[in-house]
Amino acid sequence: MIEPRTLKGFRDYLPSAMIPREQLLDTARRVYQRFGFVPIDTPALEYLEILTGKGSEETDRQLYHFQDKGGRAVGMRFDLTVPLARFVAQHASELQMPFKRYHIGAVWRGESPQAGRFREFCQCDFDTIGTESVVADIETVLIIHQLFCELGVPEITIRVNHRQILNGFLRNLKVEDRSTFVLRAIDKLEKQGEEVVRSELQQLNLQASEIDSILRLIGCQGEADAVLTELSAMIGEDIRGQAGIERLKQVASAVRAVGVTSDRFRIDPSIARGLDYYTGMIVETTLTELPSIGSVCSGGRYDNLAGLFTKQHLPGVGASLGLDRLLAALEQLGRLPASSTTAQVFIPYFDAHRLLDYMELASVVRQAGWNVEVFPEPKKLGQQLKYADQRQFKIALIAGSDELDRGVCQVKDLRHKIGTEASWRSNAGPLLSAIENIVNISEGRHLVSIPAS
Amino acid sequence: MIEPRTLKGFRDYLPSAMIPREQLLDTARRVYQRFGFVPIDTPALEYLEILTGKGSEETDRQLYHFQDKGGRAVGMRFDLTVPLARFVAQHASELQMPFKRYHIGAVWRGESPQAGRFREFCQCDFDTIGTESVVADIETVLIIHQLFCELGVPEITIRVNHRQILNGFLRNLKVEDRSTFVLRAIDKLEKQGEEVVRSELQQLNLQASEIDSILRLIGCQGEADAVLTELSAMIGEDIRGQAGIERLKQVASAVRAVGVTSDRFRIDPSIARGLDYYTGMIVETTLTELPSIGSVCSGGRYDNLAGLFTKQHLPGVGASLGLDRLLAALEQLGRLPASSTTAQVFIPYFDAHRLLDYMELASVVRQAGWNVEVFPEPKKLGQQLKYADQRQFKIALIAGSDELDRGVCQVKDLRHKIGTEASWRSNAGPLLSAIENIVNISEGRHLVSIPAS
Repeated sequence: MIEPRTLKGFRDYLPSAMIPREQLLDTARRVYQRFGFVPIDTPALEYLEILTGKGSEETDRQLYHFQDKGGRAVGMRFDLTVPLARFVAQHASELQMPFKRYHIGAVWRGESPQAGRFREFCQCDFDTIGTESVVADIETVLIIHQLFCELGVPEITIRVNHRQILNGFLRNLKVEDRSTFVLRAIDKLEKQGEEVVRSELQQLNLQASEIDSILRLIGCQGEADAVLTELSAMIGEDIRGQAGIERLKQVASAVRAVGVTSDRFRIDPSIARGLDYYTGMIVETTLTELPSIGSVCSGGRYDNLAGLFTKQHLPGVGASLGLDRLLAALEQLGRLPASSTTAQVFIPYFDAHRLLDYMELASVVRQAGWNVEVFPEPKKLGQQLKYADQRQFKIALIAGSDELDRGVCQVKDLRHKIGTEASWRSNAGPLLSAIENIVNISEGRHLVSIPAS
Repeated sequence: MIEPRTLKGFRDYLPSAMIPREQLLDTARRVYQRFGFVPIDTPALEYLEILTGKGSEETDRQLYHFQDKGGRAVGMRFDLTVPLARFVAQHASELQMPFKRYHIGAVWRGESPQAGRFREFCQCDFDTIGTESVVADIETVLIIHQLFCELGVPEITIRVNHRQILNGFLRNLKVEDRSTFVLRAIDKLEKQGEEVVRSELQQLNLQASEIDSILRLIGCQGEADAVLTELSAMIGEDIRGQAGIERLKQVASAVRAVGVTSDRFRIDPSIARGLDYYTGMIVETTLTELPSIGSVCSGGRYDNLAGLFTKQHLPGVGASLGLDRLLAALEQLGRLPASSTTAQVFIPYFDAHRLLDYMELASVVRQAGWNVEVFPEPKKLGQQLKYADQRQFKIALIAGSDELDRGVCQVKDLRHKIGTEASWRSNAGPLLSAIENIVNISEGRHLVSIPAS
């Protein structure tokens, strides 16, 4: 006998974990489509040369790779951005620009397993390729806002920065040669505090006054326009820095115009996002109720997506929903349904001789759009109802031969333990109304859809 | 520069291929849930010992496997059934029986590339584990029926057989020792014809009269009850064979009772499904308009799912939707939308100075649930409308500064090249009605939802 087990760093999704996951992905797809994004998919396996040297040294080291039977060096994708770059370069002639795509799929990284880190996880990206327009930056913010509204967690802070603000400031200080390292130091501000950042900046041979002014810059806080005015004054005449500020002004005024309130959208010059890759706007999203979990949706603008695969210049902007982190947060906040079924209605198989009747009853309720499970064996009713309770069904439709002869059934509200009789055989109206009543009065917590303000 | 290319036998999904794929998977999930099935997922990678020796010699040979950095022998899953067996054995204490799960995911097989064969493809399985009840067999057929109704291809034939019918017949002939080989020979009937089957049966040392009677048995055709009566007479006193017939009678009467018409459901004793694995009912599904493409949804009942992983006896029944084959068929039948967008509404960025107005207009239309794409750059209107035509948008909302000042826009039906003016600024009602009108009169072909008869 073989021991049934999963590999270290890998996991199964049981229904209670998979149901909210599917609902969340459905919502993401719906919102991405609302803004005109279209889906693509790419293979799990790529030629190794496509994948190596594209992320960091760390991603190279974590790559799952091997030789296939044809002797090719192949690797499993470690993100969805490198496959996107390869995809856009390969299919350039078939795609119209701007190309707005979303891509939801598993990626693999052989990380050393730690709490909450997995070697297989799902990414959920959206990007607009082929345009430098601010429209795409604005829509990136609007999508994030809409997404969390429709996920039922509208209380978020979308924090936005622009790479050229810090870069312009460093150019003024004449230390732009160290900008990558400064970025990495700043990235530690939120988690490790100002003193750690200060000591890292000292190691870059920056003077105390320079460090102070960098910390003053990234400490700017407040209402968007006021922060941008302050930053503008600090940057002075650096043209690219001022252009970055101008762009964030456009983003701020547009998202305000369509109703994103100022508590949900902030300019935050301390956001660094370690990746060298970003060149323009960068964005992070935290949950107001649980900021400690970190950013649940991050991204930014880049100059050239696919320079290693094509000479075509492909600027873009996009972001990635942190699915696993968000699910963990929703669970911590008690916002996930505890149910391990998506069916509302349970039909016990009560009288062993009336199988066809139960099948018909189930069919009538399903035709009306309800999800219905029929217990497959005529076990004792108590046993079947216990199963229904454990799985968290809302309603049981119970009928013995007497009820079936009369074309009725007992409609039992499984939470409030109350029942009512309803007829269904010739006209299913009364039964369907009874079901609807129970579902409406039940007060379970769900991933509900809340319209954007 | 690195050549952007995919591995042999692997493919990218462009939006025009991915959009119908996602719609189809949505429908499958919806129907599976309608019958009380719940989703699970398992890792792409498993310990190699979990995977080898579970399928055929062929699947062993086709396995993608390698040593990971921890020195473990690992393999990529080649189907979703072996992972299900491992899953159920591993999580037995957390699952209630019956366990009704669906699982949609990619699997990998290093097949020699032929036309239409890929090394990565998607499986879309549903199974009921832990019960021998006929209810689960009946619902397997009902789900297939409902699935194709909701996919907009209700004209199907679901063909059902029972393993014990042929086995009982072979026991009567006292040649049950060769049953596996007889099954494999019969499996070739549809594709290669009776003469090939006859010659294969001859090689099994069967007498001409035995071969004739086998061919007579598998040739039984007609209305379900009549076929079952005929088969019952041919099988005589074999107890297991008669039990198989009795079970198919229950299935036939139940599916008839809930409205599956006799042209869509047939008893067909020639269905063999090569796999040794099945022990009870087996099922195949062909499209009436394109039977040549083969079965698009197949499955059956098995005695024991996870005997290699657990001592727990786990009978089950299920089927698998042939996603790629079905998509190929729908394409051949002209039933797939040609569109490469899911957005209905296109907004050209016409007047460069009125960005906020276009953002507001888009927001108003999105709030009403429409998918809207705003072109990100203020290019020439003709160029933007050409892009909209290529992507097959239905509607363009065109507004210059004059319209924006008046709070209106031109609502242009892009197929019929007609336009109308509608106001939206203070009250979006007129604009939203105009959009709805155009969508209703447009006659594009889609994956429409047709209610089950």
